Amino acid sequence: MPVSREIHLVARPTGLPREDQFTVVEVAVGDAADGEVLVQNLYMSVDPVMRFQLNGMAPLNETLRGAAIGRIVQSKSPAFAVGDIVSHYLGFREYFRSDGEGLTRVSTPEGLPLTVHLNALGMTGFTAYGGLLRIGQLKPGEQVFVSAAAGAVGSVASQVARLKGCRVIGSTGSPEKAAWLRDVARLDAAINYRETRIGEAVRDAAPEGLDVYFDNVGGDHLEAALACMNLLGRIPVCGMISGYNGADVAVRTLSAIVQRRVMLRGFNLMDFQDLREPFEREMTGWLRSGDLRSEETVLQGIGQAPAALIGLFEGRNLGKMLVRLG
Amino acid sequence: MPVSREIHLVARPTGLPREDQFTVVEVAVGDAADGEVLVQNLYMSVDPVMRFQLNGMAPLNETLRGAAIGRIVQSKSPAFAVGDIVSHYLGFREYFRSDGEGLTRVSTPEGLPLTVHLNALGMTGFTAYGGLLRIGQLKPGEQVFVSAAAGAVGSVASQVARLKGCRVIGSTGSPEKAAWLRDVARLDAAINYRETRIGEAVRDAAPEGLDVYFDNVGGDHLEAALACMNLLGRIPVCGMISGYNGADVAVRTLSAIVQRRVMLRGFNLMDFQDLREPFEREMTGWLRSGDLRSEETVLQGIGQAPAALIGLFEGRNLGKMLVRLG
Repeated sequence: MPVSREIHLVARPTGLPREDQFTVVEVAVGDAADGEVLVQNLYMSVDPVMRFQLNGMAPLNETLRGAAIGRIVQSKSPAFAVGDIVSHYLGFREYFRSDGEGLTRVSTPEGLPLTVHLNALGMTGFTAYGGLLRIGQLKPGEQVFVSAAAGAVGSVASQVARLKGCRVIGSTGSPEKAAWLRDVARLDAAINYRETRIGEAVRDAAPEGLDVYFDNVGGDHLEAALACMNLLGRIPVCGMISGYNGADVAVRTLSAIVQRRVMLRGFNLMDFQDLREPFEREMTGWLRSGDLRSEETVLQGIGQAPAALIGLFEGRNLGKMLVRLG
Repeated sequence: MPVSREIHLVARPTGLPREDQFTVVEVAVGDAADGEVLVQNLYMSVDPVMRFQLNGMAPLNETLRGAAIGRIVQSKSPAFAVGDIVSHYLGFREYFRSDGEGLTRVSTPEGLPLTVHLNALGMTGFTAYGGLLRIGQLKPGEQVFVSAAAGAVGSVASQVARLKGCRVIGSTGSPEKAAWLRDVARLDAAINYRETRIGEAVRDAAPEGLDVYFDNVGGDHLEAALACMNLLGRIPVCGMISGYNGADVAVRTLSAIVQRRVMLRGFNLMDFQDLREPFEREMTGWLRSGDLRSEETVLQGIGQAPAALIGLFEGRNLGKMLVRLG
């Protein structure tokens, strides 16, 4: 009978989360009963959207929820066999029992690591792909700016834009990540917003203006993009992480959208479920050919989950932030 | 040989425009030469978009341009006859000669006044109609908020939304205009933003949230709407007049568009030229039946044009602001 360690939130953060607002709790999970499976989590996904749980959507002193990949280690369900790999949103713990609700069996294309299901081939990559192509209406040859371009969604979005034949500018917050944008993601321009004024840097990097701004940040990055948007430009808004920890995110120049007839659209992957098949086909090809890198930052052990979450909001991750278990 | 009085801008306003920044100049126009017509303007349209001319798009000491309706009083052109009524963008003067470029002959549906061409049946009404139906994707039964709802575009947009079977909230800046919204435009709720907090007032007036916010104002009105937008809400942005005269227009709550997957779109009538025929048909019907009121505030004489423009930015107009000439 396995004992599972789980992450509980014990106090609500106001600014950046702190380690003492989380705790690790041991829970006796029990063996799978009839119709049930026992899942051992292998990788947990650490996502900006978890901020909303911290702010109030998750109850205190219960298991935090998050995306994860696990393996079926006991099965009394006809729907799953021991060894099956499943993705789900029941993470932030090592083991759990399930009647199968919310578990999706995944098969990993040959030659790719398991973690692609939480990264470029999972929700993260699908959000980037559909956000650019459906919400952003991306066309070959366009001028594209992606903020947080070395982050999880941003690192996929910026590479997809390049692979679709666009000129791509990416912003990030460290020299190492800026080097990754140039050398690994092979973007046309990389901006370290901590070393420059973002408004001037975007303007200098976008002499032909911007057709699409893929927004992960909001605030000053959105203002920088608004100043450069071309006529009929599109701004798919995936997130506004600059405000998630309480910073000022005022946008003072929104009226720029009127004269240039620009669209902003908040979205998530519910907006383009019909793209899942072409996404999986195209993304699998890019990953196998090496044209697109599913970048990840991996911390080891459930006890590192709070540090991973804090690090995410501090921008410490390159690519997807993951916690490996077991 | 007619003498025309024209409005020149002689100094650029920073905040609200002042009378001393304009002057009236007399110009000898001359008779129509071969291929030309002489146009006598009858009504000039006074529009928020003229702010951009004041800010720099119009040269100093030349005739301001604006929409107007005139009558052909001399014609040496086969394309126009004396007495024809034309609409054009060459206004802010009494007379001018033209080779016909930029003049559009208009015919006024029986029973309607000439001024409908500058109001509900002209650019103003078309902007409201297409902004709501095409950009806002308005559907019957939806919850709609229109800011500056007693202004030119807003007064048409709010009535069109009512006629399309929506529940409509309008905001305006005086008790008289709020009464007009209730009694003449027959909206479901009218907010005087000078007598209340706009955020609370919109929330109280929209217990079912908002599906469409037709934005003429930006700033605090946009924040008020963002707090109430329903999932997949649409915000056609026609203008952000709150910022045209230099006031703070910071929007601090834009991240609301992410979770509720809301769209904002700046637009103008170039976005839906294909709707012109259904617009003219439907609007003519509403005007003739009396279901929609083409409201107007008319000042008399070219010398009143600066006062009309200043009054527009002070919110003194009910409906369309016009100057009658001759």
